Amino acid sequence: MINEKMIKLGSSRSVIRELFEYGKILKAEIGEDKVFDFTLGNPSVPCPDEVNNYASKLILEDKSAHAYTSAQGDVNTRKAIVNYNLDKYGYKLDENLIYMTCGAAAAIKIAFSSIISSSDDEILAIAPFFPEYRVFAETSGAKFNYVKCDEENFLVDFNALESAINKKTRGVIINTPNNPSGSVYDEKTIIKISEILDKKQKEYGEPIYLITDEPYREIIFDGEVCPFVPKYYKNTIICYSYSKALSLPGERIGYLAVSPEAENKEDLYFAVMGAGRALGYVCAPSLWQKVLIMHSDKTAETNPYKDNRDILIEALEKLNFTCVNPKGAFYLFVKSPMKDANEFSNIAKTYGLLVVPSDSFGVKGYVRLATCVSTDLIKRSLPVFEKIAKLYNL
Amino acid sequence: MINEKMIKLGSSRSVIRELFEYGKILKAEIGEDKVFDFTLGNPSVPCPDEVNNYASKLILEDKSAHAYTSAQGDVNTRKAIVNYNLDKYGYKLDENLIYMTCGAAAAIKIAFSSIISSSDDEILAIAPFFPEYRVFAETSGAKFNYVKCDEENFLVDFNALESAINKKTRGVIINTPNNPSGSVYDEKTIIKISEILDKKQKEYGEPIYLITDEPYREIIFDGEVCPFVPKYYKNTIICYSYSKALSLPGERIGYLAVSPEAENKEDLYFAVMGAGRALGYVCAPSLWQKVLIMHSDKTAETNPYKDNRDILIEALEKLNFTCVNPKGAFYLFVKSPMKDANEFSNIAKTYGLLVVPSDSFGVKGYVRLATCVSTDLIKRSLPVFEKIAKLYNL
Repeated sequence: MINEKMIKLGSSRSVIRELFEYGKILKAEIGEDKVFDFTLGNPSVPCPDEVNNYASKLILEDKSAHAYTSAQGDVNTRKAIVNYNLDKYGYKLDENLIYMTCGAAAAIKIAFSSIISSSDDEILAIAPFFPEYRVFAETSGAKFNYVKCDEENFLVDFNALESAINKKTRGVIINTPNNPSGSVYDEKTIIKISEILDKKQKEYGEPIYLITDEPYREIIFDGEVCPFVPKYYKNTIICYSYSKALSLPGERIGYLAVSPEAENKEDLYFAVMGAGRALGYVCAPSLWQKVLIMHSDKTAETNPYKDNRDILIEALEKLNFTCVNPKGAFYLFVKSPMKDANEFSNIAKTYGLLVVPSDSFGVKGYVRLATCVSTDLIKRSLPVFEKIAKLYNL
Repeated sequence: MINEKMIKLGSSRSVIRELFEYGKILKAEIGEDKVFDFTLGNPSVPCPDEVNNYASKLILEDKSAHAYTSAQGDVNTRKAIVNYNLDKYGYKLDENLIYMTCGAAAAIKIAFSSIISSSDDEILAIAPFFPEYRVFAETSGAKFNYVKCDEENFLVDFNALESAINKKTRGVIINTPNNPSGSVYDEKTIIKISEILDKKQKEYGEPIYLITDEPYREIIFDGEVCPFVPKYYKNTIICYSYSKALSLPGERIGYLAVSPEAENKEDLYFAVMGAGRALGYVCAPSLWQKVLIMHSDKTAETNPYKDNRDILIEALEKLNFTCVNPKGAFYLFVKSPMKDANEFSNIAKTYGLLVVPSDSFGVKGYVRLATCVSTDLIKRSLPVFEKIAKLYNL
């Protein structure tokens, strides 16, 4: 009488985690230098020294560093987040509508749990999407659906989006800069999405929440800017994480922010607190909450990710691989030289090259390379890509 | 269309958290020295220096301190936990059945989610119980039920337990040393519970899991010993936290261990991993996992809690309050001088004394005092108890 769905979720694991675990075994078997592990978004750039120094000092000097905070999080942390976003994006969030979370995954799960009430309810994503969205939506009792994207640039197919929204659509989740494609939704795109959602929520007489998953917001290149979504759409829920921006993925620190202009914002925030409670989140890790009071405006170096991208893109283009140049995040989404990306991922494995097939992201025929590895690994991997290019006569 | 249950959970909050938040406001209003806040189990004894020093050093020196771990947790952390429990209790857990969690709350929620499959399923607790058990069970889709306890000593009423178990009982949760009563289940009690559960699971032909919530296991006085439950009952799931043992409540670090002798242990562990995934837990905070590799055998000083207990018990007995002397944890469960403990808690508030009424623990007519405060606060609070004793002519 163990929960069958949970057994299935636990025994299948995500494709990403599966490959990551395989990589650990392979490294132990054939040597770390022979494995080119592009599976996991585990940042190679360290957390900034000033942040680490401050955390290290807090542990020794702040007697309340490890104490429970309010379930919503330390009010000073929430105020620091308001100030940072105001400075950077010119938009004032409300600290009383911010809820500190164990990373963006927790924030998304909490957001879904807050807006899903019935098994008819639907969460809509835009491909390519982070595969766990499906897990979080379905295990919150909703249907999960997604819209295919425009594969030219991995932006939004607006007609497809508009057609996919129905009266049971409770939330639409976007992720920009995008994992896995690296595409960044520009202002026009955000405006167009907002217009569609606004039209649809008026049509159905129910709010449709736009959940914006933004762990890569600070990792952006070539002068691009990430529009701040609450500026454009009132019913926005931000899910943010410091996993990538501060290179703290294992520490599980992030937040959820309900837009101060959202409909039913008080009830929505109560539901967020209720969901956090129901899911077993007592508070977000206290040390990192306290660190953020001083350092929510810091970002780990992003140049190494740009360098990695540039080196790899240049090499892959020379070898005739097809790949859109990502404007943000730290992934390359490369067209598989075989129709079946799973098969290609398996063949790549035999060369010690670990890349994630795209099927679970809602797009077939690509592989995702996490380029947040060391630049040295990128350089050492180039001959492997050359071998593979030859194998497929690219 | 926001989830009504979540709104309710978020707007009501737990009584404990409600009082804690009230206490913060009151302190700001009338001064910290005039508030005697016995609400929250926020340990006043610091995390041991050697643990803090090690954590502080890891942040500066271990480049992988903040990296994602496997979803189950770092294998070396899990091995350290096996070794500690083997040394201390002479029972060998299996690192492949241990799952690192964001504290005991997450562990319990994950355990419930793993064993609950239908809305007929039932989780059974023994009063007095931690109120969030109800929230975790009900929001996992199960019925929550509890057995009244023997109010003489706050141990188990075995007849009541046996009668309450039915064919839909998927799990029984116990908590020893107990929050809020401080009672410690002795070996005889654990054996008797095991016998009842064994009989019942044979009768119904389905495993009944014994979930043992043990954050206070290391905080125990007067030469008492906590029996190690998996020794006595095969279908045991341990939910452990370092919140109290290492005074790290805000850091959210603990674990779930499936007994190596449990039925369907592989499936159960898969379900645990699946539930962790579904609930948005990516991994337990990595820094503390790494700290535990070296320090899972450390415990914060427990003598101050014993001193606090002794000072307060002696004073309360002199004042004719009724209270069982707790053998573990850091709470006093005091009989309310009024029938309605909620009313008493409200009156106590007017004296700056914050105590939690017992109703949500499944017992009426008591208040819980968290004695993990400073000994100074305990001493300063005595005149307030004296005033209250006079008020009620004790």
